[in-house]
Amino acid sequence: VTNSSSRPTPFPTRTNGRSFWPEGLVSAGVACGIKRSGKLDLGVLVSGRPVVWAGTFTRNAAAAACVGYDRARLGSAVRAVIVNSGNANACTGPPGDRAVNATAAATSEALGCPADEVLVCSTGPIGVPLDASLIANAIPAALDGLSQDVDDFARAIMTTDTFPKVATARVDDATVCGVAKGAAMLAPNMATMLSFVATDADVTHEVLQGCLDGAVDKTFNRLCLDACESTNDTAIALATGTGKAVKAQDLGTAIESVARDLAVKIARDAEGGTKLIRIAVSGAADEVSAADLGKAVAASDLWRSAVHGGDPNWGRVLSALGAKDRELDLNEVRIAIGDEVVFDKGAPSGLLAAAAAALHSDHVIVTCEVGAGPGRAEVLSADLSEEYVSLNAQGSS
Amino acid sequence: VTNSSSRPTPFPTRTNGRSFWPEGLVSAGVACGIKRSGKLDLGVLVSGRPVVWAGTFTRNAAAAACVGYDRARLGSAVRAVIVNSGNANACTGPPGDRAVNATAAATSEALGCPADEVLVCSTGPIGVPLDASLIANAIPAALDGLSQDVDDFARAIMTTDTFPKVATARVDDATVCGVAKGAAMLAPNMATMLSFVATDADVTHEVLQGCLDGAVDKTFNRLCLDACESTNDTAIALATGTGKAVKAQDLGTAIESVARDLAVKIARDAEGGTKLIRIAVSGAADEVSAADLGKAVAASDLWRSAVHGGDPNWGRVLSALGAKDRELDLNEVRIAIGDEVVFDKGAPSGLLAAAAAALHSDHVIVTCEVGAGPGRAEVLSADLSEEYVSLNAQGSS
Repeated sequence: VTNSSSRPTPFPTRTNGRSFWPEGLVSAGVACGIKRSGKLDLGVLVSGRPVVWAGTFTRNAAAAACVGYDRARLGSAVRAVIVNSGNANACTGPPGDRAVNATAAATSEALGCPADEVLVCSTGPIGVPLDASLIANAIPAALDGLSQDVDDFARAIMTTDTFPKVATARVDDATVCGVAKGAAMLAPNMATMLSFVATDADVTHEVLQGCLDGAVDKTFNRLCLDACESTNDTAIALATGTGKAVKAQDLGTAIESVARDLAVKIARDAEGGTKLIRIAVSGAADEVSAADLGKAVAASDLWRSAVHGGDPNWGRVLSALGAKDRELDLNEVRIAIGDEVVFDKGAPSGLLAAAAAALHSDHVIVTCEVGAGPGRAEVLSADLSEEYVSLNAQGSS
Repeated sequence: VTNSSSRPTPFPTRTNGRSFWPEGLVSAGVACGIKRSGKLDLGVLVSGRPVVWAGTFTRNAAAAACVGYDRARLGSAVRAVIVNSGNANACTGPPGDRAVNATAAATSEALGCPADEVLVCSTGPIGVPLDASLIANAIPAALDGLSQDVDDFARAIMTTDTFPKVATARVDDATVCGVAKGAAMLAPNMATMLSFVATDADVTHEVLQGCLDGAVDKTFNRLCLDACESTNDTAIALATGTGKAVKAQDLGTAIESVARDLAVKIARDAEGGTKLIRIAVSGAADEVSAADLGKAVAASDLWRSAVHGGDPNWGRVLSALGAKDRELDLNEVRIAIGDEVVFDKGAPSGLLAAAAAALHSDHVIVTCEVGAGPGRAEVLSADLSEEYVSLNAQGSS
């Protein structure tokens, strides 16, 4: 792996199928009582000393209190991130702000660091008052359980996720380990989930922020399930500086690799979803236009339902493209489901049976060439199932 | 009803629960064999002489051949509209164009008028070749069945609709009768369905077009179910001129009344839907902003699922508003479900049990005050059910 500076490989500290944070970072996950099920609902990620961090956040005007709290600390160094699941602490008014402050204070007190060195994240239902004393009471147990293994932390941040999401990558000397949660309320505007990635690279905040921004833009921001944008989206990158100085480009590639791996896992674990859908758009005016077209297809309830049922209804792809780009020239458009070209040069083409067969996979690839320029992008989505509706028709946590 | 020029009343020719076109217009609906079920799938609407018409159309770049065909005839006079259901004839290439021309030619030949005086509309699955000979063969039977009763025509344009949609209104001397179809692929950008409204008023094309544009903007364009924009959306207004000259404002009010009634019926008949949702936004910067906020809530799969299950999850309303308006000030926002205020001045409020009770109705009203200005608008939607997914997961017609 030393002869390539662009091909990411898995992080070398992964052993026995488990993944580990870079040297200097430890985490834990405990059950503090927010989730009535008794499942893990509190994660802490701790560094032995203040470290550089970067973050990207939801732009939702109804953002949770913790989002503004963390954003205000961008550029400073931090010792810990504390994350609860089971309650988003969003739209909860002044008591919500007090819960964030109390959580940061309790964490910093236990660690013996300034409260300013603690970041706070929440995920779960919106609008439910958060009892911060549950978190404060559980902090000692969490700190007792700290280890370099990411698994409990990755589990503690889950909501309706069915499996923990972990990814690692190495590019030359840059190594990155990350976790994420996310299953619904996923729209392509900022991370639309929680993600925490860490590297031992010795970099500045500015370099780390640039690497994170670039990675999020091409991965988490090209992930669209129900097009509902969350109030708590946060992606945080930590750099411990315990490792070598690395090339910014290598670090960016490694973070993007981890983020893409996590994005695929999120799409695979979409609420009610049974199939990963990759929408590969090419021939758009530019990359942004290509991503926008892909997101329009990704957000189509009709197309997502058709994929769920194995119906190769490419008209729903084409109508989504045509609704997004009013100047689309159908004579230049080619659409393929799997390898089967179903629409070409303005008219139906190929065999629907072959396209239907491609939809029987749990990994569906839709290719859209629009013939307007060099722009290309890939957007991730998942099918829409009856179970998505059932899950979201009842109060969830 | 002569003492008010602004309060629409039902059209006086409605008797025994049936509605009738204005004098001079007749219609029929027959089964021509496009729908395998044998249900009505061909409607014709005929005038004894060329009449003024107006139209609004989908802006989808993947618009069906008939959309461009009709749009090109705006400003001329027409004798007939022929509409098939069971096949959208969209994205069907040059054979699709030929099918439109053949349909217009067969209709005009049977009526003894120029082909230019026939409008053609289609609705149904996209991308399926349309056999225009089925239509041509059925035209004689259709013309044999012409009558002033709208019912068969209203049934013949249905796809997954479960009931025909008819509305009438009278404002002073302006009388309007209209029909519509629509059940899914409904997004607020143009009519997002087919609708045909007629008046006996003696008006110019320009006046009629202005009345139709204004009505569509405030009704059909404020109807959002799955946010998927159709390739065939068309609203057509016909004015026979057999009645009196009327005030343009009265005619506009009557057309808007009919269109609003039809829009409510479409939302009530949403695919898989069990509840009509009215989203009333006030306090936006202007009316357009208010409508945009309402559409954002209307398009939320999460909120629509919650309504389906009777879960008063107002956080999904607030997150949809906050994703649409990045400058939203939560401290100025008030949200009510039914009569229960669930969020007020930046914090949760009221009783969730009372809000949940309001969701047990089949007519849910969500009120969103955003405190930024005088703009208000109402948007119509429906709940998202497992049945919507089931219906759209299998090939449908």
